[in-house]
Amino acid sequence: MTEFSDRKRVVISVVKPELDAGRFPIRRVAGDRLIVEADIIADGHDILSAVLLYRKAIDSDWHETPMQVVGQDRWRGSFVVQEVGQYVYTVVAWVDRFKSWRRDLTKRLDGERQEDVSVNLLVGAELIAEASARADPDDIPTIGRWATELRSRDITQEKKVDLALSDIVSQLMDRYSDRRFAVQYLHELIVSVDREKARYSTWYEMFPRSCAAKPGQHGTFRDCEEQLSRIAGMGFDTLYFPPIHPVGHTNRKGRNNSVSAGQNDPGTPWAIGTAEGGHKAIHPKLGTIEDLHRLIRKADEHGMEIALDLAFQCSPDHPYVKDHPAWFVWRPDGSIQFAENPPKKYQDIYPLNFESDDWQGLWEELKSVVMFWIEQGIRVFRVDNPHTKSFYFWEWLIASVKKDHPDVIFLAEAFTRPIVMYQLAKLGFDQSYTYFAWRNTKWELTQYFTELTRSEVNEFFRPNLWPNTPDILTEYLQFGGRPAFMARLVLAATLGASYGIYGPAFELCENQPREPGSEEYLDSEKYELKHWDIDRPGNLGDFIARVNRIRRENPTLQSNSNLEFHPVDNTELICFSKHTDDLSDTVLVVVNLDPHHVHSGWIELPLEELKLDMRQPYQVHDLLTEARFLWQGPRNYVELDPAISPAHIFRLRRRMRTERDFDYYM
Amino acid sequence: MTEFSDRKRVVISVVKPELDAGRFPIRRVAGDRLIVEADIIADGHDILSAVLLYRKAIDSDWHETPMQVVGQDRWRGSFVVQEVGQYVYTVVAWVDRFKSWRRDLTKRLDGERQEDVSVNLLVGAELIAEASARADPDDIPTIGRWATELRSRDITQEKKVDLALSDIVSQLMDRYSDRRFAVQYLHELIVSVDREKARYSTWYEMFPRSCAAKPGQHGTFRDCEEQLSRIAGMGFDTLYFPPIHPVGHTNRKGRNNSVSAGQNDPGTPWAIGTAEGGHKAIHPKLGTIEDLHRLIRKADEHGMEIALDLAFQCSPDHPYVKDHPAWFVWRPDGSIQFAENPPKKYQDIYPLNFESDDWQGLWEELKSVVMFWIEQGIRVFRVDNPHTKSFYFWEWLIASVKKDHPDVIFLAEAFTRPIVMYQLAKLGFDQSYTYFAWRNTKWELTQYFTELTRSEVNEFFRPNLWPNTPDILTEYLQFGGRPAFMARLVLAATLGASYGIYGPAFELCENQPREPGSEEYLDSEKYELKHWDIDRPGNLGDFIARVNRIRRENPTLQSNSNLEFHPVDNTELICFSKHTDDLSDTVLVVVNLDPHHVHSGWIELPLEELKLDMRQPYQVHDLLTEARFLWQGPRNYVELDPAISPAHIFRLRRRMRTERDFDYYM
Repeated sequence: MTEFSDRKRVVISVVKPELDAGRFPIRRVAGDRLIVEADIIADGHDILSAVLLYRKAIDSDWHETPMQVVGQDRWRGSFVVQEVGQYVYTVVAWVDRFKSWRRDLTKRLDGERQEDVSVNLLVGAELIAEASARADPDDIPTIGRWATELRSRDITQEKKVDLALSDIVSQLMDRYSDRRFAVQYLHELIVSVDREKARYSTWYEMFPRSCAAKPGQHGTFRDCEEQLSRIAGMGFDTLYFPPIHPVGHTNRKGRNNSVSAGQNDPGTPWAIGTAEGGHKAIHPKLGTIEDLHRLIRKADEHGMEIALDLAFQCSPDHPYVKDHPAWFVWRPDGSIQFAENPPKKYQDIYPLNFESDDWQGLWEELKSVVMFWIEQGIRVFRVDNPHTKSFYFWEWLIASVKKDHPDVIFLAEAFTRPIVMYQLAKLGFDQSYTYFAWRNTKWELTQYFTELTRSEVNEFFRPNLWPNTPDILTEYLQFGGRPAFMARLVLAATLGASYGIYGPAFELCENQPREPGSEEYLDSEKYELKHWDIDRPGNLGDFIARVNRIRRENPTLQSNSNLEFHPVDNTELICFSKHTDDLSDTVLVVVNLDPHHVHSGWIELPLEELKLDMRQPYQVHDLLTEARFLWQGPRNYVELDPAISPAHIFRLRRRMRTERDFDYYM
Repeated sequence: MTEFSDRKRVVISVVKPELDAGRFPIRRVAGDRLIVEADIIADGHDILSAVLLYRKAIDSDWHETPMQVVGQDRWRGSFVVQEVGQYVYTVVAWVDRFKSWRRDLTKRLDGERQEDVSVNLLVGAELIAEASARADPDDIPTIGRWATELRSRDITQEKKVDLALSDIVSQLMDRYSDRRFAVQYLHELIVSVDREKARYSTWYEMFPRSCAAKPGQHGTFRDCEEQLSRIAGMGFDTLYFPPIHPVGHTNRKGRNNSVSAGQNDPGTPWAIGTAEGGHKAIHPKLGTIEDLHRLIRKADEHGMEIALDLAFQCSPDHPYVKDHPAWFVWRPDGSIQFAENPPKKYQDIYPLNFESDDWQGLWEELKSVVMFWIEQGIRVFRVDNPHTKSFYFWEWLIASVKKDHPDVIFLAEAFTRPIVMYQLAKLGFDQSYTYFAWRNTKWELTQYFTELTRSEVNEFFRPNLWPNTPDILTEYLQFGGRPAFMARLVLAATLGASYGIYGPAFELCENQPREPGSEEYLDSEKYELKHWDIDRPGNLGDFIARVNRIRRENPTLQSNSNLEFHPVDNTELICFSKHTDDLSDTVLVVVNLDPHHVHSGWIELPLEELKLDMRQPYQVHDLLTEARFLWQGPRNYVELDPAISPAHIFRLRRRMRTERDFDYYM
């Protein structure tokens, strides 16, 4: 438990960021500056010095950067995580005898320099002489000369003091500080550094089988190619497909999740596997592996990546069932336990048994699935229901994959209790679905996104906001009409650095549930082929394109930690802002949460924080409508008619032109 | 960093109490019930089981007690720390297959018992049969019979279900639950258990040299014996002496801390050591070691312990200076560095050098000092300025002393930054001085004592409240007269389970500072012998005795964690309460913080929490004045005249006598 450190005197504690005593890494993206703070104390009144140590996890050599005092006993340092991969960081501190001596000498002289400090100068000479033993050869003569001068009887005290307190002496003494009794913080902490997309991404979910040119036909990867320019044109950078594997026949579900499928029903893509193949096979009607390669290439030309679904479960026809019976739970009657959550039964799905005696074989096979798709060029995976598979499995899988492929991104599709969602993020998922779909009121949104962005959660959990999914058509969308879709899109796209929509259902404002009270779509695409009339009137394509362009052009919207809510005196209006550290980009969002009525109110901005002058007007420029408003002071009026536009996305323009800007003013 | 746990599926986190990931123990006193909570989750929907493991640190065998769900994913268990010493505790949890099976069977039957559950019953039979392999020999036949019955074709499903869901089956299946994949929490945590006095104690500080019967004489331990019944009569249980060792001659300080001492000036007791001896010697004028033994015995007869001062520093005449020159900092002119905090100089004190090359010799010698006084019968030490000696030294010293003497109590006299004070408590000090002396307003007291008692601080920091000390005569006491002393006494004695006063200065309401703006006493006892007129009019002896009796008779005042502040609509009135868990003892304190004026106001009590009926009157009985008031509802009126009594200490009397209590009512 306790280690006794002989002559060491420093105690380092409350290091932040730090997750669960270093059990889990914190997360950043390449190019971020990581700021580290610590409480650092020692007995007595001596001055301390501290450095932040860091290295790439695969390197052995530490780099260091000095830490500064930022509050009582609180120190701060920072470094830039340049590359994707893992960095290790920790804190080292020591009692700095030279700095303490210098402080005491300064105090003793107190501006007057009358006290006899000859003995003190000899003490300083000793400290300086000791430092020469730690110095680079080049610096030894200089340091030696200083020690000699401080001891010399031929030099006045005033000159000695000037030398002792000089900057150049301080600098070299800092460099060769006596660290014999330095203390290193108990834990080495890890920061996992991902590519930027892990934080900032814009997703479009689409069923490739519904992309056929003609109704009733099964779409193909070739058909998908035709959609690329439309989707990229709306500003999406990630095109996510539900499982693309052969769909099981046994107990196949029919339209609207009916228990028996019709002759031509395609089944749900999540019932994976037939005799033709399982998780490494492509549904023959979608095309070939070469078609997929071609699609990936074409998508790349449009600036998009293809994301695949990892749904680790099997249809009864999956080859694993025959080849690896040990991976399933067998019942005494010789049947395999299908998925169920009594009284609900999913007879078309067999879960995998993570308590299997052959757990190692299972883990390795599932890893080989991921590696197979990585070899095909896939770098982004949406993971289906990760919370129903072993946490330790995910931790191992993600770590082993990222070891060789640190650019791979895993999105956790877990809609479950907060602790479970956070645990998945801690153990390695790069992005996570959220409760956003069910957070509709101002209070709910404020509470939830404050927790996600302003607490420790922000160190490890990267939200990905979805207003809809094939499983989720919220009541807000069912009853709010087109304005509801617009409001939810703006919220998703500006509250979160990452968000996604399930299309074309979203941009076509599809809002018919299977039955009242259900969040399932009527005639859900999960169970049948669809043919979408993409260009039908009222579609949100242009609106979405504009919102995504605003995200692209305003770097502050590509981050989460800068979110801040502001008061509005109307509960139906929500107001929040994001700004870059240097305030060069400040975006202010106001959304009318009521899709049916005009609402107005007074918003209140923190002028001091935004560095706005109380007495000067400033301009807010609505990037959605190009309208510009001149505001002044903290309180300003807004009014939003959902039938026209349920939201403002203002960019703050600080510099107002005045008559002084004109040449002829002078 | 990460350990992968094959088939384990449970994750345990956020265990409380836990300090710095188990780096430091939490603190309790013998007989306390330690409540432990944890977040426990697993993938999927299975039911979990969890137990709290605990053992004495010196034992190897774990005990266990079941944990219960107390919130979403939150579990709680508890055990009683019976004995003084250290206990280890941690949490173990596992996926409980039988409980999950039982839950699913219940759901499936859903009251109707019509579904065919024959296969499910066979699964249950398998689980039960497996359990017999883990069972005690006595239980094997029973368990085997159950498995057979559940498989029998001659028994109806209804009967099988009754058996499977019976309590007796549940109980045995709990006992022999399948823990193959159980997960133990990452850390083993420690609770240090002290004797009750570590939390609840009442201190009286006194200079023995001022106890002589006649003015001008140097008091002796024999003289101290004469004071015992008076001090014990006031209800104190700990009599603390400043250092009792020979006082140095070199650079001895004179009256009122003057630089040169007069012929008869005794010097400050904290300048320890002469040729006659150092930290293990007794000042010859105080008496002999036998006199001390006798005093300890006599004090014990009065229910008091003698506490000594550990001031690890030396006068220039201390034998260590000659015998162990390596323990001091030597300057280039051949002198030893005296204590200073520029521009202040303490030429009569040499600090010890904890960076000494002979640090081991130093540590061992200082430990031998403590062991010496323990051998004389001392069990309580007040440690002078521990924050100016190495933290690691204290951690080692206290741990090594407590290893053989777990009943020893160390009080840290550190008045410094909060982080440093908390660090000393974490590393082992049993009690700590506080900022109480400088917390005078309602806001200050509420903030500070909420932090001490309602945050994690309460797990390791035991406050000891001193309204005055030989170094601290606060402005509040200087200007507030007798009512100020009474108010501060009540606050110290009721806000804290431990408190102390420096007497007789306190009970005589001594309030003359050395000069305006100073917190030093005029003619301070630190530098001269005093002769106190104990019985002089206005002395607070009886008042103190009454307050201490109230503390003794009300167990809730012997604890800190139960402190709660209540609103009063007057900033000069502070109101707080403490109650035992079972509400059998509820004490309500109201203090007028203004020593000069009458104040009144309405206090507001949380009736629900105190289990008081809104519609019934209740009685508050002032234990200071014996006055009784009938109150009703949450808001009640109080008025306090500081000239009469600046405080109420109410005991809540729940049961009101009514006419129904009389025999003739019927």
